[in-house]
Amino acid sequence: MLENLKKEVFEANKLLPYYNLVTLTWGNVSALDKEKKLIVIKPSGVDYDEMKPEDMVVVDFDGKVVEGSLKPSSDTPTHIELYKAFKDIGAVVHTHSAWATSWAQSGRSIPCYGTTHADYMYGAVPCARPLTDDEIKENYEKNTGLVIIETFKNMDYNAVPAVLCTNHGPFAWGKTAKKAVENSVVLEEIAKMAYRTERINTDVKEAKQSILDKHYFRKHGKNAYYGQ
Amino acid sequence: MLENLKKEVFEANKLLPYYNLVTLTWGNVSALDKEKKLIVIKPSGVDYDEMKPEDMVVVDFDGKVVEGSLKPSSDTPTHIELYKAFKDIGAVVHTHSAWATSWAQSGRSIPCYGTTHADYMYGAVPCARPLTDDEIKENYEKNTGLVIIETFKNMDYNAVPAVLCTNHGPFAWGKTAKKAVENSVVLEEIAKMAYRTERINTDVKEAKQSILDKHYFRKHGKNAYYGQ
Amino acid sequence: MLENLKKEVFEANKLLPYYNLVTLTWGNVSALDKEKKLIVIKPSGVDYDEMKPEDMVVVDFDGKVVEGSLKPSSDTPTHIELYKAFKDIGAVVHTHSAWATSWAQSGRSIPCYGTTHADYMYGAVPCARPLTDDEIKENYEKNTGLVIIETFKNMDYNAVPAVLCTNHGPFAWGKTAKKAVENSVVLEEIAKMAYRTERINTDVKEAKQSILDKHYFRKHGKNAYYGQ
Amino acid sequence: MLENLKKEVFEANKLLPYYNLVTLTWGNVSALDKEKKLIVIKPSGVDYDEMKPEDMVVVDFDGKVVEGSLKPSSDTPTHIELYKAFKDIGAVVHTHSAWATSWAQSGRSIPCYGTTHADYMYGAVPCARPLTDDEIKENYEKNTGLVIIETFKNMDYNAVPAVLCTNHGPFAWGKTAKKAVENSVVLEEIAKMAYRTERINTDVKEAKQSILDKHYFRKHGKNAYYGQ
Repeated sequence: MLENLKKEVFEANKLLPYYNLVTLTWGNVSALDKEKKLIVIKPSGVDYDEMKPEDMVVVDFDGKVVEGSLKPSSDTPTHIELYKAFKDIGAVVHTHSAWATSWAQSGRSIPCYGTTHADYMYGAVPCARPLTDDEIKENYEKNTGLVIIETFKNMDYNAVPAVLCTNHGPFAWGKTAKKAVENSVVLEEIAKMAYRTERINTDVKEAKQSILDKHYFRKHGKNAYYGQ
Repeated sequence: MLENLKKEVFEANKLLPYYNLVTLTWGNVSALDKEKKLIVIKPSGVDYDEMKPEDMVVVDFDGKVVEGSLKPSSDTPTHIELYKAFKDIGAVVHTHSAWATSWAQSGRSIPCYGTTHADYMYGAVPCARPLTDDEIKENYEKNTGLVIIETFKNMDYNAVPAVLCTNHGPFAWGKTAKKAVENSVVLEEIAKMAYRTERINTDVKEAKQSILDKHYFRKHGKNAYYGQ
Repeated sequence: MLENLKKEVFEANKLLPYYNLVTLTWGNVSALDKEKKLIVIKPSGVDYDEMKPEDMVVVDFDGKVVEGSLKPSSDTPTHIELYKAFKDIGAVVHTHSAWATSWAQSGRSIPCYGTTHADYMYGAVPCARPLTDDEIKENYEKNTGLVIIETFKNMDYNAVPAVLCTNHGPFAWGKTAKKAVENSVVLEEIAKMAYRTERINTDVKEAKQSILDKHYFRKHGKNAYYGQ
Repeated sequence: MLENLKKEVFEANKLLPYYNLVTLTWGNVSALDKEKKLIVIKPSGVDYDEMKPEDMVVVDFDGKVVEGSLKPSSDTPTHIELYKAFKDIGAVVHTHSAWATSWAQSGRSIPCYGTTHADYMYGAVPCARPLTDDEIKENYEKNTGLVIIETFKNMDYNAVPAVLCTNHGPFAWGKTAKKAVENSVVLEEIAKMAYRTERINTDVKEAKQSILDKHYFRKHGKNAYYGQ
């Protein structure tokens, strides 16, 4: 079942090492079949090189394995919460990519310092609050999802398709698996450049609203004019 | 039409990923046919891997597409202004290369700290002033070009063939597309080394004038003696 | 003799350049045959590209070469001490990988700033005390091992399978040669991210105990649920 | 003439891009035929990819081209001075490798912070004093050599086979072209690690003398025991 989606998820997972977003097995991509409410996700702890499309695991919204002989990613409950709350998204990516994870470990949101950021993310990439000890002890992965959702209570998850989890690392999402990976690539690049920007000029200010508006809406929405 | 120039522009665009100057589709090269006053430029948002020479777009100085089935780079109006003002140049490159973009985001010019810089750029690489809200809202890409030209009001664009646009990224230029890409490579390398130089010695001073003179004129002008 | 173990050690040594953990010949992997109390180790100063499985050297616990025409790694006495004291381990890796070595040169332990670290190491990676002049002058390599063991006097070497030697570089270990190399890969990655984390937020605190517990025991021990 | 030496110099020049020590054409290797007092050196400004062994240029100690249809590296007079003063060396390498050049631009010597450094260089890698305006204006390349020699007035060039030229970049040397390139690789690696070491611990001290003695003499001199 869901052979096309499995292939899509498989290929998106292979993009993680291609874009240098993962070390060892530290990352996973899932995608959603919206009609069937089924999620296809990478199996847990399997090497990207040894993985085959048919190894992708199908789970339902309760996390129950519907098809597949392998265990799904241990982060599956986080992915499920995101699909339940963010109705427009079709795919989720989690990695420990080095620059974004360093920001997550530092507990800071990534300010928007320029157009590279504004082209994809309409404002700072937020760092979610730390989980409480109780949230960590029980249902940790589910609570990770809930805290991400809490972070976006007053934000548009379509306009900022990524988040940092304190002491952990980034999640990103998008309409398709490929688009969610692309957002992960962008996040890593802007995390790197924001780090360097703050060192070059310790008094640097965020880019102003007009830059954000121009670049974000040059690429998004009904007045977009970037691309074909 | 302009088949040779299309091939030259195509190949120069392919050099951007080769030299690690671009992520995703974030960069474009154009070149000018001086007699016909026509510009050949990369199509907007197209992957470097999927691009073919015949996909290059031909536009005139008003930005009108003269030949090509794809839309030209959204940065085309910036390129056009540069060709109109900088009479000696034959090609323009724009990227979001990580080191140069970090300097651009910080709003600082890149000081000349050594001979690697002086071999190619006769003095600091300037950071153009931020655009005003009005300049951003209307004709943004054209105004980006105009602010670059303003920056070079009292400078020789041949002697410093690159600029940083605040909150955005670098532009570079040259006689040919290949030479303009080469200047982008140099810019990225000196941006990286200037960053590290300032960290190693927080009191570092710019290289003195005699170093600039010796190295720049070793490679440029009638007394040059570098190369074959 | 020990053909399988030689092959395993050979392949693990080849992983060092694959994972960018070594420059030139700066690293070595050994593994232990527990029954025979014999160690298989890389020959000293031999290029990874020119090395063959049969070049691996077999030594006993006194450092005597039991088989092999080449000299064993000059770090062999350090490996031996670790095998003698750390009864559960089956392999040892030493490199001069750049990030971990920079921490070692700075004389600082690597704090646990997040889950990437906690997934593999249950707490800070300790930096062993500097050797005294006498410890350096006589039996330097053996004393390097003894100081590592001293560092773990009140620590569980299974739970933190790596150490930094002041002014020198890292050692890591594991049940198998492949696992010990994996721990070296992890160490390098967390060394890099800890460096950046401290720069992004100069007031950053270590991850709290509940994070350590959740992530370490998600992957280790009888309640582990990561992987297949 | 000197076909073997030309091949050696050619291959050593090809190692520069292999080890990521050069961007574009920014580096050159030469070697000396001691009996004939002739130097074989890379031609000026030629791409490493297009270069052939027969393109290597033969010059005498006056810098006169004895054989070869191309112009020798513009840095040839620096190489010549080094061969004239440092009697034991057989090869010289100059690059603009990014980490070593950043130290050179900062005007600081690279302190010895650990064993990676001490394995190859017996103490800090010195930064030569800046050239005076007069030294820059006339016979710049020759004076670059003379200032390097001045730097080693009270130092052993065999024990520290590398130098940084202020505002410029590194030179390294050795008995053979391959060994001189190896010293350039080491220099770049220790420059990188020293940079990071100073950031991780702003109060870090240089490695003590006993570390220097142990590691340097483990690899050099009559009591060496590293390698085969």
